[in-house]
Amino acid sequence: MGIDKKQMALGAMMYFPAGEHISSWRHPESDAAGLLDFNYYKHIVQTAERGKFDMFFYADELYVWDRFESGIVQSNSIRPEPFTLLSALSVVTEKIGLAATVSTTYNEPYHIARKLATLDHLSGGRSGWNIVTSQTDEEARNFGKDKHLEHKNRYGRAKEFVDVTQGLWDSWEDDALLFDKQSGSFADKDKLHNLNYQTSEFSVRGPLNVSRPPQGYPVLIQAGASEAGKELAAASAEVVFAPGSAFGPFGTVEDGVQLYEDIKSRMTKYGRSRDELLILPGFMPIIGRTEAEAAERLAIVEELTPEKLGVDLLSHYLGQDISGYPLDEPLPFVPQLEGFNQSKSNLARIIQLLERENLTIRQLYKRINSRGVAGTPAQIADQMEEWFVSGAADGFNIMFPHLPGGLDDFVDLVVPELQRRGLFKQDYTGNSLRDHFGLKRPANRYSTVQTS
Amino acid sequence: MGIDKKQMALGAMMYFPAGEHISSWRHPESDAAGLLDFNYYKHIVQTAERGKFDMFFYADELYVWDRFESGIVQSNSIRPEPFTLLSALSVVTEKIGLAATVSTTYNEPYHIARKLATLDHLSGGRSGWNIVTSQTDEEARNFGKDKHLEHKNRYGRAKEFVDVTQGLWDSWEDDALLFDKQSGSFADKDKLHNLNYQTSEFSVRGPLNVSRPPQGYPVLIQAGASEAGKELAAASAEVVFAPGSAFGPFGTVEDGVQLYEDIKSRMTKYGRSRDELLILPGFMPIIGRTEAEAAERLAIVEELTPEKLGVDLLSHYLGQDISGYPLDEPLPFVPQLEGFNQSKSNLARIIQLLERENLTIRQLYKRINSRGVAGTPAQIADQMEEWFVSGAADGFNIMFPHLPGGLDDFVDLVVPELQRRGLFKQDYTGNSLRDHFGLKRPANRYSTVQTS
Repeated sequence: MGIDKKQMALGAMMYFPAGEHISSWRHPESDAAGLLDFNYYKHIVQTAERGKFDMFFYADELYVWDRFESGIVQSNSIRPEPFTLLSALSVVTEKIGLAATVSTTYNEPYHIARKLATLDHLSGGRSGWNIVTSQTDEEARNFGKDKHLEHKNRYGRAKEFVDVTQGLWDSWEDDALLFDKQSGSFADKDKLHNLNYQTSEFSVRGPLNVSRPPQGYPVLIQAGASEAGKELAAASAEVVFAPGSAFGPFGTVEDGVQLYEDIKSRMTKYGRSRDELLILPGFMPIIGRTEAEAAERLAIVEELTPEKLGVDLLSHYLGQDISGYPLDEPLPFVPQLEGFNQSKSNLARIIQLLERENLTIRQLYKRINSRGVAGTPAQIADQMEEWFVSGAADGFNIMFPHLPGGLDDFVDLVVPELQRRGLFKQDYTGNSLRDHFGLKRPANRYSTVQTS
Repeated sequence: MGIDKKQMALGAMMYFPAGEHISSWRHPESDAAGLLDFNYYKHIVQTAERGKFDMFFYADELYVWDRFESGIVQSNSIRPEPFTLLSALSVVTEKIGLAATVSTTYNEPYHIARKLATLDHLSGGRSGWNIVTSQTDEEARNFGKDKHLEHKNRYGRAKEFVDVTQGLWDSWEDDALLFDKQSGSFADKDKLHNLNYQTSEFSVRGPLNVSRPPQGYPVLIQAGASEAGKELAAASAEVVFAPGSAFGPFGTVEDGVQLYEDIKSRMTKYGRSRDELLILPGFMPIIGRTEAEAAERLAIVEELTPEKLGVDLLSHYLGQDISGYPLDEPLPFVPQLEGFNQSKSNLARIIQLLERENLTIRQLYKRINSRGVAGTPAQIADQMEEWFVSGAADGFNIMFPHLPGGLDDFVDLVVPELQRRGLFKQDYTGNSLRDHFGLKRPANRYSTVQTS
């Protein structure tokens, strides 16, 4: 099995249901009213499978962004619950992996281990888990807390959460179930294990009441790019969704190589080799058949976000309300990471951007909202190829300015170009998400004979 | 809409994946190895839909029953997670309702409100929720607790849990979403509501990030038959899964009428009318084309459970280990409800049974394990008709001695007999689970204009 090292891995990302932007639902080609209709998602995931994407990647949050009135009125605040959605999508697909964001801060590991194991069984080994720690006080307040857990504490909890779920997935050894009707032996009792996990954070006895997932563990994905996030990724992630094109026309290849090396070099101390982790920067192509058409399409996307919403979104990322400042002047203060308790990596990128370019508030919020790369299919493929061959990426998590149209374009125009160049597979060669990504099936910690 | 009052409602129950018994997986016709295979469940739910069942009802627990070694070795301890399963099944069905057991003791209301709302959207209004409070210390230990929450406290929590979920389902008024691309108005801010629920049990701000379920609220089902359970049912349940045939050849019709009147008469003080709640006793037919064949099939079922497992299961229900007592003598003590913290209604039924009949331990555990009614299709239909016309039932939750065969038999042999007698519908007349059950769509608490 294993992917040809010369070929890239591709994920199809859905951040908001209508596309990557907070205003994607306004795009003339979006299907805004389809957001809770199964057929909308069915079309999208089947298109991604037609394009041989390795996985469909569904982002999630646990709140309505109502910090500002613009968030209620102008943004797309509703989204299906991930497991309910992915499980339904597993029925209408055969090969594509199905991954979703699940928070370790506002969940119980027993429930999450069980849902992922069930999805892995029902889908024939196609589940993936994007491990996040959540970001906002609004989420905390839906779960009995006043404030979001401190950054450091939530990464400690995340690491333990993953430990617990992996322990639960190992509850049943791979050959524990006997189904012997004659003797009445359903299971071999020596191959069922209690976890008995006991720390100040979690107390979980086990065993899990679902047998070991077909993939051993679902594929573990991580997106945090803070110091703590990078350490968690190096220790236990198998895919990193890196902030490739966030806040800029794709950043620079040098930025990409630096982050790639930074994360991969941390793996050694955890006893892991570099090929046990794939780094997939996010990349949002805005595709035109000609350069002129691509530019037109970019202009449409850039006009979608109303001014007030754009400023409020920037206030959100900065963690303070900046709506009183003049839009055509720079921020009157330098944002500080110290003590900041939302996404540190987002804020770090804003700080870095302001160090490099003297942007006004208006320019800054537009940059945040317009992180697409416009081009012809060949130009898009050129950029992807450059990152891939330079050692900045093992593949990409593709983001779409609007859905389903942005995905249709990518599959119909860019995928064939990548295939022609030998950069992307012609078809699936395996069945599980691990097969697609060339990742090994993890051994069960309790087994003396391995069956991977 | 609304069902003809002369016709019964029917649920198709799955307790263990292979059938109602702890040993159903051993039945010669069971598909023991299919328990985590989607196609196994697909066949079952499609058969239930072919038989015009109103709902598929999936039970759940949050642990492996490993209190006794027999539980690990001889019982079927694995089961798919309910939402993951039901959501996948929604894709391969069109009409049948999809209900599952979800515990209010070891869950967060925001997650559960969201999953049920999503399932309701994706399935087109077919979701139902069997509200339970869990039963064992084993479950507590998978969720950071030493002991199961006290009976009284867990019903208080259950009631609040339902209040919170209903409040979250009302977050968005039915006409709150505008999808107006031109003006940029995704939603009407005056039609989005925070819950701001604050008690010692829950602190949930809201709003929910899924819009109002097509059914308003999913259908609320309740199965507890303790005093606290009956009050919760009278206050907020829309379907009661009553213990019709548990522990006996179907109990007596008089028992059924008494429980039926007991629950319905409690509704008045909550301002509810009797037809806002359906009472569906459990009923497990063991069907033969002839009486002789039915008797043979019953004998097969009665032999499935090994002696040790049968005794251990009785120890579990009693909350104390009785394996040291002689099997062919009566229990040397009278079980006490006082201070008992598992299922009080199960224990109450055991106590009642022992008051009526002087059973040995062996007879008692066999009775618990053999709660089926053997008969020809006409005899089965006779019993159902008697209960239905006597005012002991609005319909039944049908349990199967083994799956999928027991369901196949019911659909092929008993359903046509019920239809011939005019007791059961020839086809679905509506689309939602509320339609099937003749239940009204609840109003949104915030709406001034109702849109039901």
